[in-house]
Amino acid sequence: MRITGTFLDEISHDIPHQNWGPEEWDLDFQAMRAIGIDTVILIRCGYRRWMTYPSQVLQEREGCYPPPLDLVDLFLTLAEKYGMEFWFGTYDSGRYWHQGQFQEEVDINLRVLDEVWARYGHRPAFKGWYLSQEVSRRTGGIIDIYARMGRHCKEISGNLPTLISPWIQGVKAVSAFTGQTRQAQGITLEEHEREWNEIMAGIAGAVDIVAFQDGHVEFDELASFLSLNKALAERHGLRCWTNSESFDRDMPIKFPPIKWEKLLLKLNAAEQAGMEKAITFEFSHFMSPNSIYRAAHHLYRRYCEQFGLEPWQPPAQ
Amino acid sequence: MRITGTFLDEISHDIPHQNWGPEEWDLDFQAMRAIGIDTVILIRCGYRRWMTYPSQVLQEREGCYPPPLDLVDLFLTLAEKYGMEFWFGTYDSGRYWHQGQFQEEVDINLRVLDEVWARYGHRPAFKGWYLSQEVSRRTGGIIDIYARMGRHCKEISGNLPTLISPWIQGVKAVSAFTGQTRQAQGITLEEHEREWNEIMAGIAGAVDIVAFQDGHVEFDELASFLSLNKALAERHGLRCWTNSESFDRDMPIKFPPIKWEKLLLKLNAAEQAGMEKAITFEFSHFMSPNSIYRAAHHLYRRYCEQFGLEPWQPPAQ
Amino acid sequence: MRITGTFLDEISHDIPHQNWGPEEWDLDFQAMRAIGIDTVILIRCGYRRWMTYPSQVLQEREGCYPPPLDLVDLFLTLAEKYGMEFWFGTYDSGRYWHQGQFQEEVDINLRVLDEVWARYGHRPAFKGWYLSQEVSRRTGGIIDIYARMGRHCKEISGNLPTLISPWIQGVKAVSAFTGQTRQAQGITLEEHEREWNEIMAGIAGAVDIVAFQDGHVEFDELASFLSLNKALAERHGLRCWTNSESFDRDMPIKFPPIKWEKLLLKLNAAEQAGMEKAITFEFSHFMSPNSIYRAAHHLYRRYCEQFGLEPWQPPAQ
Repeated sequence: MRITGTFLDEISHDIPHQNWGPEEWDLDFQAMRAIGIDTVILIRCGYRRWMTYPSQVLQEREGCYPPPLDLVDLFLTLAEKYGMEFWFGTYDSGRYWHQGQFQEEVDINLRVLDEVWARYGHRPAFKGWYLSQEVSRRTGGIIDIYARMGRHCKEISGNLPTLISPWIQGVKAVSAFTGQTRQAQGITLEEHEREWNEIMAGIAGAVDIVAFQDGHVEFDELASFLSLNKALAERHGLRCWTNSESFDRDMPIKFPPIKWEKLLLKLNAAEQAGMEKAITFEFSHFMSPNSIYRAAHHLYRRYCEQFGLEPWQPPAQ
Repeated sequence: MRITGTFLDEISHDIPHQNWGPEEWDLDFQAMRAIGIDTVILIRCGYRRWMTYPSQVLQEREGCYPPPLDLVDLFLTLAEKYGMEFWFGTYDSGRYWHQGQFQEEVDINLRVLDEVWARYGHRPAFKGWYLSQEVSRRTGGIIDIYARMGRHCKEISGNLPTLISPWIQGVKAVSAFTGQTRQAQGITLEEHEREWNEIMAGIAGAVDIVAFQDGHVEFDELASFLSLNKALAERHGLRCWTNSESFDRDMPIKFPPIKWEKLLLKLNAAEQAGMEKAITFEFSHFMSPNSIYRAAHHLYRRYCEQFGLEPWQPPAQ
Repeated sequence: MRITGTFLDEISHDIPHQNWGPEEWDLDFQAMRAIGIDTVILIRCGYRRWMTYPSQVLQEREGCYPPPLDLVDLFLTLAEKYGMEFWFGTYDSGRYWHQGQFQEEVDINLRVLDEVWARYGHRPAFKGWYLSQEVSRRTGGIIDIYARMGRHCKEISGNLPTLISPWIQGVKAVSAFTGQTRQAQGITLEEHEREWNEIMAGIAGAVDIVAFQDGHVEFDELASFLSLNKALAERHGLRCWTNSESFDRDMPIKFPPIKWEKLLLKLNAAEQAGMEKAITFEFSHFMSPNSIYRAAHHLYRRYCEQFGLEPWQPPAQ
């Protein structure tokens, strides 16, 4: 099963920045295109005070810093140039919804969504929405956040599809800001089913696609969780993708590119579970020949070998 | 506001070593020179048992290991070759002054300073002193350490200028040896002013320049702290530079090159606060085209673009 | 003292994977050969569910995942191509022997050893065994594990030599999965001698060579521990090598390539202690010109300069 979509992680909270400008991003879209990536998903348009585009709403309301470059425009331009779909990720305040102010998180986002659609909605590559408030459990308020934001996205955009990418509360669901890589206990299949059954029932119609992150459970548990997620999605009429993480959650350095053998194992498991599409978090740091991490260059080569693809070569400097 | 000075971090306690020899250092001085760096500051001449030059004093007194290369000589030679000023950083025992033995820390350093001035004082690039005992608060003994060491530096060298680079006890003032990136509470402007008012009163005359590190406070607090530091320095007749850190304090990896947007924001804030000069910790790891970190190469390009500079290119290998 | 052997760390539990295929490994064997490495030691043939070769025993008994590539075959082929010795590392369950099930750990390994010898024993480069269960103290059961596994290795292979590489329970013997780099207290020379005297008495005849890891004690303690280990080995008729670690244990990033000065200091100490041979953990990540870490490229150059070697150059990409 090949990866045909990737997140774009330009406002990161735990992945170091690559400091790319338009030229470097153009090269990376070429490298993506060469292996069949047709969908790029902005992980979030803003996080706390950082933004990907000069949002008036966020400057006024959240005191966000005007960015040196309009990345939404850049990514749309490159998606258009290379024939890809661009999906837009919502703003993550990093605080309201963690402090019980769900209404606040939604209110800001509804205004951001209107602003974004007015600015970029006419762009031919604008093809979908990503609801960036990521959870693993039926956390208070999340159904309402997804449902209200998802519905608004669809209403203003002529029903463009909406995507979420939750994680599984597995043994590896630990903070990136600690040396530990695992916790004592992960969620059981039964608990996971109970909670996500309830969430999906509440968001069906507002959220079209669910793409669970595949890195938080043990490798030998993954097949079961993939099948369960597929069954849950079908039960509620959602489409089911896999978010096959291309970074390694087992190492003290948080995070290096994943070992190729692990990624292959996860993609094979996703294929067997009948996932519709595989996306990854994310190509540019962890499997790109342009990455600041050299292990990513080798991962790209291994991936190309596996699928008989001609690897794209960065131009000689 | 452009960066015109950088620390040289050859005896590091938390930044991995690049393993450069004279050839690689020569290239890096070229890359510095190309963007207008005119001042290089040795962060410390020794730390615990490691030394940058074969100090008799430190071998005899602290059992330090003779280094494979005399870096002080190398840096002076390169500074002379490329028309830069070299500032010499004092020895940091890593213990005496942390254990209340302030007298001991000063005593060793006075002997080191004499030795260094005898060995290298005649070198044309030798232009200043850096007092490497870094603090954020009016820690017991620090006024006396700065005052005695600073006075001695000036006395033996015909009044060459002395520099300190304290940090601010902000929310990001946490140990590098933990996954955490912030603590619950940072110092207030009022406390910071009270303590540094007292310190500066005690060191004026012995210390000429203060260059606070700019990475420990929230980005939205920075302007206030910069202005306060400027006002404090003026009140006591000190010159005020900014030490604009080029590494990122917000990431679980400690430390990667900083996101360009953050560095630009900090430099703009320093300019608005009227800082006399911007130096950085430090060019060679975090913003050099020769760095072991590729994100530094991209940061260098972004920096050059911003200021209309022609980026220096490393020779093809 | 030059390094003439290296571990191969293909199944790692704390070092990020480089994602090399046969082509990249071939280049790295060239780089090793160029500096006189004549021995490569597979750190372990499997760890938990990961394997270096498609072991029937481990698939059936431990549910291990069939690897995409037979690395044991690859490493033997490259060792033969470049005239090196290949030593095979035992399977580490990562659990049985940590949970008191020593018998289980040995039983699995005896079957793995038989399988491996049947598959690869005829290969000309197969020249020794590495017992990968690493300890620092007389941990319950370890004498029996080493003795039984070591004897079996020798019996089935016509007495090929067996190697262990314990660590010293020094101040730096802390988990890789924490930001800390040292603990309050390290083992004393006396305790170390008492315990290893007992262990060596129990394993003599089954284990031929002991190569202590040299990175867990303070640099100023190293000479004493090296001399003690040499004396202990001689007392019990074991050969004594040093495992001179080429990664840095003093940094918050776990782990970068070591500072050249530190490696040189350790190699000099090993020479003075009269060590028979120096191996390293490990060349490919930490001192190779092919490494994903650029500081390793520079370390390779420093090493070549020191010993007057012509550095191998990676082919232009």
